[in-house]
Amino acid sequence: MSYSEKITKYMQKRESYAIKLLQKLVQEKSISEHERQAQAIVIETCREIGMEIDIWEPDMKELSTHPNFVSSRKDFHDSPNVVAKWSGAGGGKSIILNGHIDVVPEGDMKQWRNDPYDGKVEDGKVYGRGSTDMKGGNVALLMAISAIKDLGIKLKGDIIFQSVIEEESGGAGTLAAIVRGYKADAVIIPEPTNMKIFPKQQGSMWFRINIKGKAAHGGTRYEGVSALEKATLVIKKIHELEQKRNSEVSDPLFKSISIPLPINIGKIEGGNWPSSVPDLVLMEGRIGVGPHETLEDVRKELSEALVSLEEIDPWLKENPVQLEWFGAQWVPGSIKEDHTFLKLLESNFEKVTGQSPTLEASPWGTDGGLFTALLNTPTIVFGPGTTEVAHYPNEYIKIDQMMKAAEIIASLLIDWCEIAEK
Amino acid sequence: MSYSEKITKYMQKRESYAIKLLQKLVQEKSISEHERQAQAIVIETCREIGMEIDIWEPDMKELSTHPNFVSSRKDFHDSPNVVAKWSGAGGGKSIILNGHIDVVPEGDMKQWRNDPYDGKVEDGKVYGRGSTDMKGGNVALLMAISAIKDLGIKLKGDIIFQSVIEEESGGAGTLAAIVRGYKADAVIIPEPTNMKIFPKQQGSMWFRINIKGKAAHGGTRYEGVSALEKATLVIKKIHELEQKRNSEVSDPLFKSISIPLPINIGKIEGGNWPSSVPDLVLMEGRIGVGPHETLEDVRKELSEALVSLEEIDPWLKENPVQLEWFGAQWVPGSIKEDHTFLKLLESNFEKVTGQSPTLEASPWGTDGGLFTALLNTPTIVFGPGTTEVAHYPNEYIKIDQMMKAAEIIASLLIDWCEIAEK
Repeated sequence: MSYSEKITKYMQKRESYAIKLLQKLVQEKSISEHERQAQAIVIETCREIGMEIDIWEPDMKELSTHPNFVSSRKDFHDSPNVVAKWSGAGGGKSIILNGHIDVVPEGDMKQWRNDPYDGKVEDGKVYGRGSTDMKGGNVALLMAISAIKDLGIKLKGDIIFQSVIEEESGGAGTLAAIVRGYKADAVIIPEPTNMKIFPKQQGSMWFRINIKGKAAHGGTRYEGVSALEKATLVIKKIHELEQKRNSEVSDPLFKSISIPLPINIGKIEGGNWPSSVPDLVLMEGRIGVGPHETLEDVRKELSEALVSLEEIDPWLKENPVQLEWFGAQWVPGSIKEDHTFLKLLESNFEKVTGQSPTLEASPWGTDGGLFTALLNTPTIVFGPGTTEVAHYPNEYIKIDQMMKAAEIIASLLIDWCEIAEK
Repeated sequence: MSYSEKITKYMQKRESYAIKLLQKLVQEKSISEHERQAQAIVIETCREIGMEIDIWEPDMKELSTHPNFVSSRKDFHDSPNVVAKWSGAGGGKSIILNGHIDVVPEGDMKQWRNDPYDGKVEDGKVYGRGSTDMKGGNVALLMAISAIKDLGIKLKGDIIFQSVIEEESGGAGTLAAIVRGYKADAVIIPEPTNMKIFPKQQGSMWFRINIKGKAAHGGTRYEGVSALEKATLVIKKIHELEQKRNSEVSDPLFKSISIPLPINIGKIEGGNWPSSVPDLVLMEGRIGVGPHETLEDVRKELSEALVSLEEIDPWLKENPVQLEWFGAQWVPGSIKEDHTFLKLLESNFEKVTGQSPTLEASPWGTDGGLFTALLNTPTIVFGPGTTEVAHYPNEYIKIDQMMKAAEIIASLLIDWCEIAEK
C-alpha cells in the first residue's frame, strides 16, 4: 500500500477522533485573553503525538518595541503561545505549520440557532464560533502530523507546529514565535480558504480620516462649511484611488476577484445637531495592501491622494484632511509562483482530490505576512472552511473538507520534509 | 417736544437702567426647565411698569394633543409662562410683543473668554448667553412699554407682552399663550435680526434618514453593500432637491440670501468597524419651509425625492431609504407686504435711524409662525443682535442697537395702538 493510500485509510479511521478534538476546541471559548483552556487541549494532543512542547506567555515589554507589533492589550497573562516540535532526522527541509487559537466574539447571540460554543455536529458539519476560523484548520494540521507519526514514518526535516494567540487582533502571537527564534524553510497556514491555495495574501491597514468644516446654523448653512459635504469629496477620492490601484493589478491570481485591493470605509461619524452645520467628520477604514507592495508604499499613496484634494477644493487647502494610521495592520505575504513548496502542494492536492486546485490571492491578511516580511520564508495559506461563515453567526466547517485538508497536508509533509532512511 | 424727541431723550436717560436689567436677566441661566428666576425679574419689571400679570405653568396634558405641539419635556414644572397686559382705552388696534426667556446651553465652556452668565459690559456690548437671543430684544420691548407709560401716554389698543418659555425647543410656550386665549391685531417678535425687518419667516422641520446596506468583511467588500456609498446618493439627491426648491424661490425678500430654503444635514453616523462594510447609516437634518409653503407640502417633497432614488438604484428599490420626522418644527410666518403694521414699522425705523430699513425673509423659524398659522395674525420679526453670535460662545449684544430697537418699537406702539383722547 502506498503512503497515500495509508494516509487516506488513516484519516477515515480517525475521523471521529478528529471531530471530537474539534468539538473540544470549539467548546473552549478562546476569545482574546481567554486562550488558556483551548491551548491546554492543543498541548495534550501534541504530547500524545509525542512532540517537544514550548509554552510561554509573550513578553509585552520585549514585543512592544517591534515595528510589526500591534496589540491593544496590556500584557499577555493567561494567553500562552504553544509551539510543538517534531525534530527530523536531519538533512531535510523544515516546515512551520501555523494556526491561531483565538476566535472573535460570538456577536449577537440572538442570531445563533444554537449555543455558539456547543460544537454541535449536524449534516456533516461541526458548528460553533471558531469551527472554521480556524480550529478546523488546526485540527487538520494535528491530524496530518498524527498520521505521519502513527504510520511509523520518520522525516528528515523538522515539523514545527505553532498554536498562536492574537491573530484576530494583529498577529502578536506569531510575532512572538518569530522573535523567540522559530524559523523554517516553508510555512503553511490553514486559514479558511475553502480549499483554494493562496500563494499570495493581501495585507491591510486601518486608517482614520478627520475632515474639518465650519459650524453655522442650519438656516444659514451658507455661512458655514459642511464637513459632511467635504467628506463626500474624500469618499469620491478614495473610490478613485481604489479604482486606480485595482486597474494596475495584473496578477492572474486576482483575476476572479472583482476588487483585489479594496479600500473599505467602515465607520463614519459627524456633527451632533440636525440644525447645525457639521464642523467635523471622522471616518475609519481599511485599505488592502497588495503582495507586491509595502505598507509604506500604500500609506504614501493614500496620503498623496488626500493631499491632492487641496488642488480641487480651496477649503481643504486651508484645512487639510488629517490622515492617521491606527490599530490593526497585517503585512502581505507570498511565495514565488515556481517555488517547489507550492508545486508540491498543488500536486498533492490533485493526488488527494482528483481535481486541479484553484490558485488565488487572498482578500485578507493573515499571520503569513509576518513570515514573509520578517523571515523571508515562503508562505502559503490553504485550509478548510469558508470566510463566508467566519466571524458570522452559525459558523460551521464541513468535516469532509477538514479531513481532506489533513490528508493533503500529510502528503505534503512527506514530500517536503522527505522520508529519512531507516 | 414731539413724542419722537421725548422717546429719544427717555432712552438716553434710561440706558443704564436697561443695561442693568439685561445684565440681571443674563445672570439667570434660563435654560429649558430653569426659567423661573429670569421670569421673576420680568414679573418685577412689569409690575413696576404697572401691567396686569398672568403667570402659569403650561398644562402638558392639554397642550400635548395640539397638532403644533413639540416638546420632549415630561411637564412644565418650574417653567412659568408670563403674560403682562396693559389694557388700552378702547377703540384701537392691539399688539402682542413676544419674546422668549429660554436660552440654549452655553456649550463648550473652554471657548468662552468669560463666565457665560456674568453679563459683562465691554466696548458698548453686554456679553453672555442669551444677550442676543433674545434677552436684549425682551429688554427693548420692556423699555418701549416703559417709555410710553413714563411719558404719560395713554393708548387706545391693548399691549400684551409675552415672556414665553420653550422657544428653543419648538415653541410650546407661545403655543400655550395662544391656547390660553391671547390674541391681538399684530405681533412683533424682537429676535436678533440685526435690525433688519423680517416680514416673512422661514419655518423648518427636523428629519431622520435611515439607509440600509449589507455587512461584509472589508477585504471582500464587493460581497456587501456599503450603506455609506448609498448615503452619498442620498446626500446628492438632497442637494439636488435643495437646488430645485431654491431655484423656484422668486420672492424679492430672499434676493440677498444665497440659499433661501436650505436643507442641512447636521449629523451622520454609520458602521462600527474599520474592516466591516457598514450596513446602516443614519442622518439627521433640518429642512427650511418657505413662507408660502405648508409643513405637509415640504414633507411630501422630501419624501418623493428619496423615493425617486429607487429608480436609479436597484439596492434602494429593494431597501428603500426610511424617512422620519422627529423633534422640533417651526411653522413659517408672514405678514402681507402692504400691511399697515409693516408700513408703520418701516416708517418708524426711518424716523429713528435716518436710514431705510432692510427687508428680508428670515432664514430660520420663530414662534411667529404659530401666530400666523393658528391665529392668522400678521407677524413681524425685528430686533437687535445678530444670529452670528446667537448659540455661540462669547455671545453679546450691542447696547446702542438694543436702545434703538426700543425707540423704534415705542414709536410703533404709538402709531399702531394710537393715542387715546385725554
